[in-house]
Amino acid sequence: MARNSELALIRMIRRRVPAAPRGQVRLGIGDDCALLRPRAGEEFAITTDLSIAGRHFWLATHPPESIGHRAITRGLSDLAAMGARPVAAFVSLAVPQELSGEWTTRFYDGLLELAKAQKTTLAGGDLSESPIAVADVVLVGSVPAGRALLRSAAKPGQALYVTGTLGGSAAGLAQLPELADSESKAVRQRRGADNFTALALHLYPQPRVAQGLWLLRNRVATAAIDLSDGLSTDLAHLCEESGVGAEVDAELLPVHPGATLQQALHGGEDYELLFTAPESVRIPKSIAGVPATQIGRILRHNPNQPAISLKTAQSTKPLEPKGWQHFA
Amino acid sequence: MARNSELALIRMIRRRVPAAPRGQVRLGIGDDCALLRPRAGEEFAITTDLSIAGRHFWLATHPPESIGHRAITRGLSDLAAMGARPVAAFVSLAVPQELSGEWTTRFYDGLLELAKAQKTTLAGGDLSESPIAVADVVLVGSVPAGRALLRSAAKPGQALYVTGTLGGSAAGLAQLPELADSESKAVRQRRGADNFTALALHLYPQPRVAQGLWLLRNRVATAAIDLSDGLSTDLAHLCEESGVGAEVDAELLPVHPGATLQQALHGGEDYELLFTAPESVRIPKSIAGVPATQIGRILRHNPNQPAISLKTAQSTKPLEPKGWQHFA
Repeated sequence: MARNSELALIRMIRRRVPAAPRGQVRLGIGDDCALLRPRAGEEFAITTDLSIAGRHFWLATHPPESIGHRAITRGLSDLAAMGARPVAAFVSLAVPQELSGEWTTRFYDGLLELAKAQKTTLAGGDLSESPIAVADVVLVGSVPAGRALLRSAAKPGQALYVTGTLGGSAAGLAQLPELADSESKAVRQRRGADNFTALALHLYPQPRVAQGLWLLRNRVATAAIDLSDGLSTDLAHLCEESGVGAEVDAELLPVHPGATLQQALHGGEDYELLFTAPESVRIPKSIAGVPATQIGRILRHNPNQPAISLKTAQSTKPLEPKGWQHFA
Repeated sequence: MARNSELALIRMIRRRVPAAPRGQVRLGIGDDCALLRPRAGEEFAITTDLSIAGRHFWLATHPPESIGHRAITRGLSDLAAMGARPVAAFVSLAVPQELSGEWTTRFYDGLLELAKAQKTTLAGGDLSESPIAVADVVLVGSVPAGRALLRSAAKPGQALYVTGTLGGSAAGLAQLPELADSESKAVRQRRGADNFTALALHLYPQPRVAQGLWLLRNRVATAAIDLSDGLSTDLAHLCEESGVGAEVDAELLPVHPGATLQQALHGGEDYELLFTAPESVRIPKSIAGVPATQIGRILRHNPNQPAISLKTAQSTKPLEPKGWQHFA
């Protein structure tokens, strides 16, 4: 890519940057660093997630808009799990020369559309050539000081909830190899509708930012984590950080229509929130327009037993973490 | 890499995380996000930089400690250029399976050694498998609110300074293809000494954090940028953001012994600070132990002329930006 095209690309990005939440981003793109300052009484939640061609997406099957959307979803979902309000994203993108034109523009189309919908500005990043396509997206959110929802605050006896449905993204992924680019655009146009297909859930997952903010504001959740790696793996993370065990009731799981129980348990990339609340607290059936379902409960952890068990009509068996492994 | 080895790696990293500056990192590695809060009257400077195998480093020639050191240097140098004090780093690393053992440990050795020296904690990150080695390192620093050194504050008539020497890293890079791993270790052991070789400057550049803090504290610099892409390119960035021109005097340039004028002008990765100050301000010959040299001055920008010129004994000619191009 010629230097002129690179500058044109940077100008294109700068022109389209969504507005920042007032007062928190004091300096955006264009200097050595961005300058950010939380509002009085708030602190920043910061997270970073890599998306790598051949690992987190496939150039042959994922439209560039979906790759951009998914790359920023991961961090927005991390913010949601803390109850944080998105403020700014930093996007580092490296692509082979042949992707530095239309592909990169469409990647930013998808990323900036979701950023705008979530009132998140783009405050910086990096742009480079690379043998393979890689994006690293950093999200900064703000949360009332000392009140973020942690993974480590679940207590035995509390109820375990999940937002939305499970396994839809994995079911969509299973359809993906057959996906033509034109079909994906049709799917994309339907994504505002209620009847999300599994494919749309995979290509354009919706981070549960409003639901995380609701949980924090209403002071009902004790612990929370987002379901990026899969229920079995993310629940194991939550149990480990809280020093507790858990029992999941298979019959209560909100399995996405068309998805299997295995996809719901281990599929990953649903980007729903998994959270705990005292049994005495009434959780509404719907939080900010998305269903909330009790799927089990937190138990005391007996170090001689598996931390998590799955209860079915027939039996109760250990639930092994079989979700996404960062090295697999 | 088996899941157990991945967890062992994460445990190794968590065990070795340098302490955080007191009070600013309220929650580090282990949850969906880290939680950070600037001290009263301060704001955060945030920057992110990609380092990609075959582009920013070569596995065959750069020791893994150097790759880790260089990956975090880029962000520390960005903080230095704002006059910010490092607080926390977030490290996203993706490597092929065969590098997930000793290589990754040595990468973190190099990265964490510099982090510790610069009192920077590791507050989060991501770890993934990838066809090629990629690191994205985010740095968060703190700076008195409204006082960060910007690229955009240079004014005509001001003097232009640079810390340290120029071209050393490029001269070292030119030696690199002959480098054996054992030799690099010997070089590494010398890096505390005064007589830095060009090779050591390339492998283990020292971000000018103390110098940036000095410039801010003493209120002498007007604008600043770090020399990551090369003097000609970074000076062009500074001039563009400030809407000014500049004249560089070739005879004043502190060319590193053994480096050429071309390497000093366009080489990149010197990680020195380029800054401006009013002519009336006396800049000491040495700032926090590193030389400071006037190399030219800021001029009014005439849109019909090149923004930057290079003055030699013979002539004054346009200085084209020929440093690092993100797509080249």
